[in-house]
Amino acid sequence: MKIQEFSSLLEKVRESNPLVHNITNVVVTNFTANGLLAIGASPVMAYAHEEAADMAKIAGALVLNMGTLTEKEVKSMLIAGKSANQHGVPVIFDPVGVGATAYRTETAKRILEELDIAIIRGNAAEIANAAGQNSSIKGVDAVEAAGNTSELAESAAKELGAVTVITGKQDIVSDGRSIYAINNGHPLLTKVTGAGCLLTSIIGAFSAVEKDPVKAAVTSLVVYGSAAEIAAEKTGGKGPGTFQIEFLNSLYNLSAADVESYGSFEKMIG
Amino acid sequence: MKIQEFSSLLEKVRESNPLVHNITNVVVTNFTANGLLAIGASPVMAYAHEEAADMAKIAGALVLNMGTLTEKEVKSMLIAGKSANQHGVPVIFDPVGVGATAYRTETAKRILEELDIAIIRGNAAEIANAAGQNSSIKGVDAVEAAGNTSELAESAAKELGAVTVITGKQDIVSDGRSIYAINNGHPLLTKVTGAGCLLTSIIGAFSAVEKDPVKAAVTSLVVYGSAAEIAAEKTGGKGPGTFQIEFLNSLYNLSAADVESYGSFEKMIG
Amino acid sequence: MKIQEFSSLLEKVRESNPLVHNITNVVVTNFTANGLLAIGASPVMAYAHEEAADMAKIAGALVLNMGTLTEKEVKSMLIAGKSANQHGVPVIFDPVGVGATAYRTETAKRILEELDIAIIRGNAAEIANAAGQNSSIKGVDAVEAAGNTSELAESAAKELGAVTVITGKQDIVSDGRSIYAINNGHPLLTKVTGAGCLLTSIIGAFSAVEKDPVKAAVTSLVVYGSAAEIAAEKTGGKGPGTFQIEFLNSLYNLSAADVESYGSFEKMIG
Repeated sequence: MKIQEFSSLLEKVRESNPLVHNITNVVVTNFTANGLLAIGASPVMAYAHEEAADMAKIAGALVLNMGTLTEKEVKSMLIAGKSANQHGVPVIFDPVGVGATAYRTETAKRILEELDIAIIRGNAAEIANAAGQNSSIKGVDAVEAAGNTSELAESAAKELGAVTVITGKQDIVSDGRSIYAINNGHPLLTKVTGAGCLLTSIIGAFSAVEKDPVKAAVTSLVVYGSAAEIAAEKTGGKGPGTFQIEFLNSLYNLSAADVESYGSFEKMIG
Repeated sequence: MKIQEFSSLLEKVRESNPLVHNITNVVVTNFTANGLLAIGASPVMAYAHEEAADMAKIAGALVLNMGTLTEKEVKSMLIAGKSANQHGVPVIFDPVGVGATAYRTETAKRILEELDIAIIRGNAAEIANAAGQNSSIKGVDAVEAAGNTSELAESAAKELGAVTVITGKQDIVSDGRSIYAINNGHPLLTKVTGAGCLLTSIIGAFSAVEKDPVKAAVTSLVVYGSAAEIAAEKTGGKGPGTFQIEFLNSLYNLSAADVESYGSFEKMIG
Repeated sequence: MKIQEFSSLLEKVRESNPLVHNITNVVVTNFTANGLLAIGASPVMAYAHEEAADMAKIAGALVLNMGTLTEKEVKSMLIAGKSANQHGVPVIFDPVGVGATAYRTETAKRILEELDIAIIRGNAAEIANAAGQNSSIKGVDAVEAAGNTSELAESAAKELGAVTVITGKQDIVSDGRSIYAINNGHPLLTKVTGAGCLLTSIIGAFSAVEKDPVKAAVTSLVVYGSAAEIAAEKTGGKGPGTFQIEFLNSLYNLSAADVESYGSFEKMIG
């Protein structure tokens, strides 16, 4: 993978405006839609059982996020997910808060068993819990990383049969064989609700234009993290309100030169 | 219609703070409420079947938006809509994404048949699909305008028995007899999710203070588009994050002089 | 109560990042979560009947807000509320729009009867309606204060058996014996949707670190109102879009010195 491939995939998203179908939580819908528009994708949210399969079928990617799950929404996710699987549409899964309650743990398990997930993204605690390891979690925020995150990503990818993305101070991507580390991003992202959820949807946007899920994921992390660094520079000491706005600006304005100058990743294994 | 009438209607909204009852999608609730507050209206969202009729009855206008429809919400819309119709409260309808899935097409048809809709607003593809013409649509974004939009607005208004508003590069309003074109607005609006949805709710606010639906719609488009132009000037090259904030500022600060200096419309027919 | 206690409680929130479980309305989820993150708390929204009790049990506070209530959500509130009561987690209640429809009035009554509410917050009309007095309300915005708000707060606190917070030009806190008046805040807060709802959630955050509900409430009002005053200064004449962003910045940056310099409260009785 070369960094020039990332900027060319960004161009591809902006030219083709892929339709990203999100079944996501009620906290982050607006920010997710605005972030997808800013990067150049075309967001749609469609939950009704009557249309979830139809919408997933015509999308470039389907993003499932269980942040504020209800039984009805879980059913929507399964309907949309099966339709996406049948029609070759990649399914990206964000198991928000898995491990925090028994219901979240069971639901994540059900989605991972019944659907073919291309990419799963979470913090270290979420990925550990999703992969059947116990890890402490407080609400929807990770409390502690479960040891070595690159080993966790590798083992979770093998266990779950999905490319695994762990986000934290350093981001890790693994398909169970190769492992990539991405060094972009900024702590202010943790002060904006839904920053992780939007990232998962951005992975959806790149998955719509790049068939290799590892490359789609690494590209997303580099692009997202670079935009965050630029936004943090523009924010100065103003705070998370301003950062949130500058981040949308930055996703919209990010140039190939920015990606190539800010982007920082390395292949660890594979 | 004279442009001075628009600024005087804006003053009327700010003085009377009309209650606008929205049954809208989960992506745009916050932006819609903040936009309505900024223009001077009093927004309320009430979906429960137990109270939808009571709330619609006391509102100045009812706005129905099917962006993230579910069967339960459709029922709320019908309950609220019938109550509004009985009590002379104008009903404004935004058929988001009609044509994208069979469920959306059927739901739009059901709402248009069971309720007396005063004004319908959509992009060209949505209006064409709502009026029973087939038009390509991708998710909830229009792909192409179905030919001449002023003819489409006129024929849709006749077919649907509702004043029809088509938004796009140029905005069109028709009641099936007269046709108005409005030349305000800015492309950055397409980079803010819910910009169309908020416009529909603003049409609700003006409908609460102006009985003539054509005048209420034209006023809304001129006011909204003028505010967008001013916001775009203040945004400079910063991007859609900043634009979204400047747009709320601009709706709040828009003066009679601004409306009169930026407003641009023409009567095409009638 | 001394103002230095307020800044030390603010420090405590920032150090302990209390988990605040919100069952709130669809309009304000994002702003509430961002505001809680800005003040230093850890927000979670969990509505499913299957997990509401589990999440409430591990939270530092539970906040119930009936802004866009449905029967399903009311059931979630009761499940979560009973769990919170059993496990000593304080329950804060925001009876949005009570009095506007019969359904809201009945639901508020049901919640107040079935749960042990530590603190209730509303505008004067909401508190009067919640306490069984009739008061005019338009949608979810108060039309007029029902006479003397400090007497209202005192009588409502006695009637409801909960510390009562009335917000308006002057904010009042009473437990039925003592009465405090807080003079912080800014009119621009009324132009940002969910400003009251976020305040209720912030009261949740302070209740998680301070057992005395009167002190937790007074602290929240002083902190929130001081942050609003600073944000208004930074906003200048720009408008409510900018104010919303500056307010999040201000909650994040508020220092002990700011609280001590801006904070203004007095004990009226008790």
